[in-house]
Amino acid sequence: MPVRLGRYTLLLPSMPGISGYAAVAGKKEGEGPLGSAFDYIYEDGTAGEKSWEKAESIIHRDAVTRAISKAGVSPQDADVIFAGDLLNQCTGSTFGIRDMGIPFAGIYGACSTMALSLAMASVWIDSRVCDIAVASTSSHFCSAEKQFRMPLEYGGQRTPTSQWTATAAGAAVVSKNECKAKIEKVIVGRIQDYGIKDPNNMGAAMAPAACRTIADFLRDTNTNPSDYDMILTGDLGSVGSELLCELMIKQENIDISSVHEDCGLMIYDTSVQKDTGAGGSGCGCSAAVLCSDILRRIENGELKKVFFVGTGALMSGISTLQSESIPAVAHGVLLTGG
Amino acid sequence: MPVRLGRYTLLLPSMPGISGYAAVAGKKEGEGPLGSAFDYIYEDGTAGEKSWEKAESIIHRDAVTRAISKAGVSPQDADVIFAGDLLNQCTGSTFGIRDMGIPFAGIYGACSTMALSLAMASVWIDSRVCDIAVASTSSHFCSAEKQFRMPLEYGGQRTPTSQWTATAAGAAVVSKNECKAKIEKVIVGRIQDYGIKDPNNMGAAMAPAACRTIADFLRDTNTNPSDYDMILTGDLGSVGSELLCELMIKQENIDISSVHEDCGLMIYDTSVQKDTGAGGSGCGCSAAVLCSDILRRIENGELKKVFFVGTGALMSGISTLQSESIPAVAHGVLLTGG
Repeated sequence: MPVRLGRYTLLLPSMPGISGYAAVAGKKEGEGPLGSAFDYIYEDGTAGEKSWEKAESIIHRDAVTRAISKAGVSPQDADVIFAGDLLNQCTGSTFGIRDMGIPFAGIYGACSTMALSLAMASVWIDSRVCDIAVASTSSHFCSAEKQFRMPLEYGGQRTPTSQWTATAAGAAVVSKNECKAKIEKVIVGRIQDYGIKDPNNMGAAMAPAACRTIADFLRDTNTNPSDYDMILTGDLGSVGSELLCELMIKQENIDISSVHEDCGLMIYDTSVQKDTGAGGSGCGCSAAVLCSDILRRIENGELKKVFFVGTGALMSGISTLQSESIPAVAHGVLLTGG
Repeated sequence: MPVRLGRYTLLLPSMPGISGYAAVAGKKEGEGPLGSAFDYIYEDGTAGEKSWEKAESIIHRDAVTRAISKAGVSPQDADVIFAGDLLNQCTGSTFGIRDMGIPFAGIYGACSTMALSLAMASVWIDSRVCDIAVASTSSHFCSAEKQFRMPLEYGGQRTPTSQWTATAAGAAVVSKNECKAKIEKVIVGRIQDYGIKDPNNMGAAMAPAACRTIADFLRDTNTNPSDYDMILTGDLGSVGSELLCELMIKQENIDISSVHEDCGLMIYDTSVQKDTGAGGSGCGCSAAVLCSDILRRIENGELKKVFFVGTGALMSGISTLQSESIPAVAHGVLLTGG
């Protein structure tokens, strides 16, 4: 049963385990540094479908199906799936999993969705609410650009601060069984809004939320950055990552720079894949990085303690047009060796 | 700690309580049969804002603020808020509550959001994950029409099967303290898709999901419709309600007609308010009906056992244009006298 540490952090004494995980990705992500870590690369971004939205549902379902299979169970065994995505009304997930018959608790955390879904799933497992919970999310570059920014056909210029929405999906099966990694603590974030209005600079909008959650967590757990092998944000990109490290020092007097990594900076080689700008983003980015390279390194014993902090910008295309600022949230999950 | 009953239902032995609830609504809802039950009526649908979206955020925040105040606590006391809405990227809730500093777990269940948020909140309370959890949602006729169907200015004809998205918000505070109603059981629904493609007939799309969840719940709990004072769906409207009762008999051989009520049929007097078509809909409809009339009647002892089944159609404006069918989900919460 979860135990509260400090004001915001939950300790999960039973240490729910990730018994299966999978990540699938598109061609560009396959060409990135983690290409060989993904379970499957879709060379064709349409996944054989007639629309980008339908393609996203296909890759979402694929990641869920693979994770469940790798956990050695079947969809009928799953008690609940916590899933969501960036598409309007979360159709990437709902249409992707609609035929699977798993009780569906829809969640929304923008690009923080993988962390939120893992937090929700692991709390349920630790509370013995259920035996097998699935956490999943996805994003698709083409469906996201069309929805949040410009139609692809417009060929709009990208600013240097803009991030590249990953075409990718990730899923993890959380259970109390034998596992590949354990979830020891979780923290649900508080919304931060520093007045950033530029939808092409999500890193700047999300950095304050990451700062808030990391500071809350370290204070609640009475730990320091050096107690972790990695504090992994997803996805601040280069601009947001720099801002986060600065904010952590200026606001909180905590230096995380020696252990900080960012999923948005891991999924592409921005020096070669120049169009990826400040790095990757999108729900699928941190989901695919976590559910491939990171969990594998935890499973192998290479990483022992990873504090994964999903970051989400909570704006919409409409709120941007209405000159609203961009609220952001960051949820955290502490992963440890199995 | 929750106990599983059958395959899908959770019994919450500690019976989490609703210690405060509030509903605010627009002018048309104020003129309906429940007008006097709402905490506040916004005569001006803009709520003094420059856009319908901003207005929805205002009414969302208002409902949350009132519910928290009526529970006798302050926002700083709240450990978590489970909130979501129909707007793209759930900005009704995120922008509404962004300044409140409450840890935010975003959820998405379309019009089933009130039931999903109550289910999530009560599971956390029963598992002693936290002491005070808020559940909330909202919808606005004008923001929803613009987003899902036609710009209001277009003056499109409405079909008789179409439902009227309520301008309303509802919120409930769930805790283990002294309470006005208790949450005894919850069920997370499974997505159903019967191939309905008409976005002007949401009742038909959602009825199968309600049927699935009600049948699962009755089987899991080994109960009959007559064991309940009310099986309250939200929001099937007249078309969906008739279909639900038919489906329950034909598919499940269960007659719920004597105890079935629908929030969409309670919020308007469709015989007088003729433009409301087949009845109300939108996240705010069932939220406002539940968090006013229904919870008050439970508090007064008039109703002892209400099985509230929120129904949500999981399509988007884009999926409709892409000729997709409409998946739906229904989540259930059993409310009993305090």
